[in-house]
Parts: sequence; structure tokens; C-alpha cells
Amino acid sequence: MTDAAIAPTAALIIIGNEILSGRTQDTNTQYIAEKLTGRGIRLREVRVVPDQKDIIIKTLNELRPHFSYILTTGGIGPTHDDITAESIAEAMGSELILNEEARSMLLAYYGDEAQLTEPRLKMAKVPKAASLIRNPVSGAPGFIIGNIYVMAGVPKIMQAMLDEILSMVQTGPKILSNTVSCALGESAIAQGLEEIQSRYDTIEIGSYPHYRAGALGLSLVLRSTDAAILDKATYEVVDMVRSLGAEPNAITLQSPK
Amino acid sequence: MTDAAIAPTAALIIIGNEILSGRTQDTNTQYIAEKLTGRGIRLREVRVVPDQKDIIIKTLNELRPHFSYILTTGGIGPTHDDITAESIAEAMGSELILNEEARSMLLAYYGDEAQLTEPRLKMAKVPKAASLIRNPVSGAPGFIIGNIYVMAGVPKIMQAMLDEILSMVQTGPKILSNTVSCALGESAIAQGLEEIQSRYDTIEIGSYPHYRAGALGLSLVLRSTDAAILDKATYEVVDMVRSLGAEPNAITLQSPK
Repeated sequence: MTDAAIAPTAALIIIGNEILSGRTQDTNTQYIAEKLTGRGIRLREVRVVPDQKDIIIKTLNELRPHFSYILTTGGIGPTHDDITAESIAEAMGSELILNEEARSMLLAYYGDEAQLTEPRLKMAKVPKAASLIRNPVSGAPGFIIGNIYVMAGVPKIMQAMLDEILSMVQTGPKILSNTVSCALGESAIAQGLEEIQSRYDTIEIGSYPHYRAGALGLSLVLRSTDAAILDKATYEVVDMVRSLGAEPNAITLQSPK
Repeated sequence: MTDAAIAPTAALIIIGNEILSGRTQDTNTQYIAEKLTGRGIRLREVRVVPDQKDIIIKTLNELRPHFSYILTTGGIGPTHDDITAESIAEAMGSELILNEEARSMLLAYYGDEAQLTEPRLKMAKVPKAASLIRNPVSGAPGFIIGNIYVMAGVPKIMQAMLDEILSMVQTGPKILSNTVSCALGESAIAQGLEEIQSRYDTIEIGSYPHYRAGALGLSLVLRSTDAAILDKATYEVVDMVRSLGAEPNAITLQSPK
């Protein structure tokens, strides 16, 4: 991708035993991926890791030099298995402190001092060098330190925090996505699709077979920030499908993903 | 976890731009996680990476020394963006060859030699040192090399391949999971839950808040391979909830996850 050099990149770390045990179906990844893609930020890697401090620290340190933004979800609540803040503080060499602004946010949410129990105050403890991400849903904030953006794992809270993050960070040219759907097999289109890909090095072309109602279908997806070139390549894909004796059953143009 | 030393571990690598762009909601992770957990294999990490050879190789090499099994999904079809087999061959230093047994599987599936086009034969190319995983759904096999188990990304095909893998590999003592659900906030139970966790070092206790129908609820999940100790700890959690003036709205015991 020629625009990869200028487009910001991101990695996502999902912190949570509940995903790794199969108890919970993660939906945050797709939500975040769509939002980032829509703002021209390329999500390049996702890691799901357990609630384990040494692994969280290792993962952060491996990823943070390589991407514009590191997003995390999960592990910022009041219970013993919420160890994200202390892990990140240790990874970044920034002392975990009670943040007065975070304390005020909790006070505003819970209403009076007597409600600020020790477990709740744990949610106001962030690395000293961090700034806060507001949580309009349940009070306790996320935080930002360096290029790390720390969000809650509960989808509704995460989504509100992501909105705030996206209002702050540098975004890139919007990544457009065109899709040509047809009933051909992948093997039939493989050669033609590769030829088209070889002529468009700024476009990422993917081939995705699927089963629906027992029938195998195929989606050919073209992605780029350049609408004109993207449309040109898309019509070449449509022509190729027709040259194989099939008619696309859907063509979706420039739908921002 | 005292049984962690004897229980086999796994990492999962999901290869696919379509997950990172947000186009596709991944459901393979939860399916695989549940199946592994049910067979006593602990899934310790998941990585989603793009269809990019250098990153796939780097990811494989980072993970494979640390886990009993490395599972991969995606990128083994006939199109230009299917680069999993060649990436794994390079990572493992094993030449990519046309596997005669895989060729026979394709012949059996497609019916005659004339159907074995070049794109289809690509799906019979695996590392020389690999053995095959049968694909009863669409013919083209997965493969095994070292501790790496390579599956298709299409859920229906992946699921059939996983069944075959699980019939071959060493499994561990079944991991049991008990859940106590209640309408308390996490802050209310934090201290009591931590005290229980501190007394049961063979049990993994997690606290998961959620919104359903606009109300905040809480699931307290206890996991262990030891049913007797697990039940004992679970009833301590139930007692704690009651001591806080609440009644659990659901208690699910020894449900294998």
C-alpha cells in the first residue's frame, strides 16, 4: 500500500480470561476495527491476552514501538482480576497514583464522599504520567499514557471511550471498500484476480468464500483510499466475473468501512 | 493454577485482513476457545494478523516455543491472498511441495483430473514435513507441521478440522466452570471476592459486569479442574453475595466450558 507510510496504524490488546476460555464472544474487535478503518487508521494486529501482569507488560512492550496507537480493552474495574492499570504503569515506568481528576469524576458519578469506597477508588488509580478518557456511562475513566489508550471492556463503555479517543488522535485518509459478490468458486477467479491485483499495487484485494443457506458464495473485496482507482479496479473484477459466465449478484461501491 | 504445569496450552493465530478491517466478525476464536477448554487445553493467547508473509513468520516464531499447540485459521485457499502455507513452510525451513496425498483428496472431491486446475492444486501444496488434516466439507486439507495445526478460516470447514485435531492431540483434565450471577455492583463484591481468591490458589475467579436490558448485572465465574474445591469456593461466593443483602439470580454449577 503506497499510503501505508502516511496512514496512522494501530494495534489492539484485549485483556481478558473470559475471551480465552470461550465464555464471552468478543465483539469489541469488530467494532473498533470498523471505527478505525472508517477514520483511516489501519488496525494491523490484535492480541487477546490473559489477566496476567507479566504477559500484559511483555505484550505492551513488544507492540508499542511499532504502531501509532496501542488500544487496550478490559481490566480497569475494581476487582482483584483488574490489573491493567498497574501493568501499564509498570511497563511505562510511571508510578501508579490516585489521580485527583479521576477521583472527582467518581465523586460526580456516585454523588457523595461516602460512596468512594476503597474498591471504587482503585478505579481512580492510573499511572502518574497518564491523562484521562471520560466515561459517560459508569463514571470510572480510561486513560492515555504515551501512545497507549486504555479502555473498559464492557462494550457500551468502550464505545463511548473510543468516540472520545477518535476525537483526539490524528486520523488518515478514509479507507474505501468495494465488494463484488458472485456464486463462482475461488479457484475459478484466482488467476484473474491475481492479475488484477498485480496491476493495482495501491489496492488491497481479498477473496472471501462463505456458506449461506448451504450454498458456497464468494465476496471479492477491494480496499483503497483512492476512490477513482478503486472504482476502475472494481469494474475490472466485474468484467472478469462476467468473462467467466457469471453475473455478480451484488456490487457495493465505495462503502466506507 | 497448580494444574497449569501439566495441562497442555495453546495459542491461536487468526490470519486475515477481513478481521482487521472490521468487515468480518470473527466467531472462530470463541468456538475454538470453548472446544479447547472443554478438552482441558488452556488457550493462552490469540493473535489476529494480516495476510502478510513477514508478519505471519514472525508471529509463528515468537509463539511456537511457548505453547503445546499453535493453531492457525485462514489463508489456505487458492487465491493470491492465501499465503499461509508458504509462510509456514518458510518459518519451519521445510520446502513447499505438492503433497500427493493432498492431491488425491482433491481428486476425490472434484471427481476428475481435468478439475485439478492450477489454483486448486495450490491447495495441495504444503510444507514437505507436514502431515494432513482431512476436510470433509470442501476437500482441500489443512496440515500439521511440528506443533503447528493449520486450519481453514471458513467456520464450517475449520470446525470439521478442529474435530480431527482434537482426536489426535493430548488433552488435559477438563476445566470446570461455575457461575454466580447477581445484581450487585463490582465494587460491592470486590473485597470479599479477593479474599476468597486468596484462599483458593488453584481456582481462577473472574468478575464480569454486563448491561442487559439497560440494567447492570454481574457474573462471578470460578474455573478449576477440581470439582470438589470448585463447589466449595462457589458456595463461599454465594454466601458472600447473601451477606451483602442480595440473592444470586442464577447459580450454574460445574458447567464444562
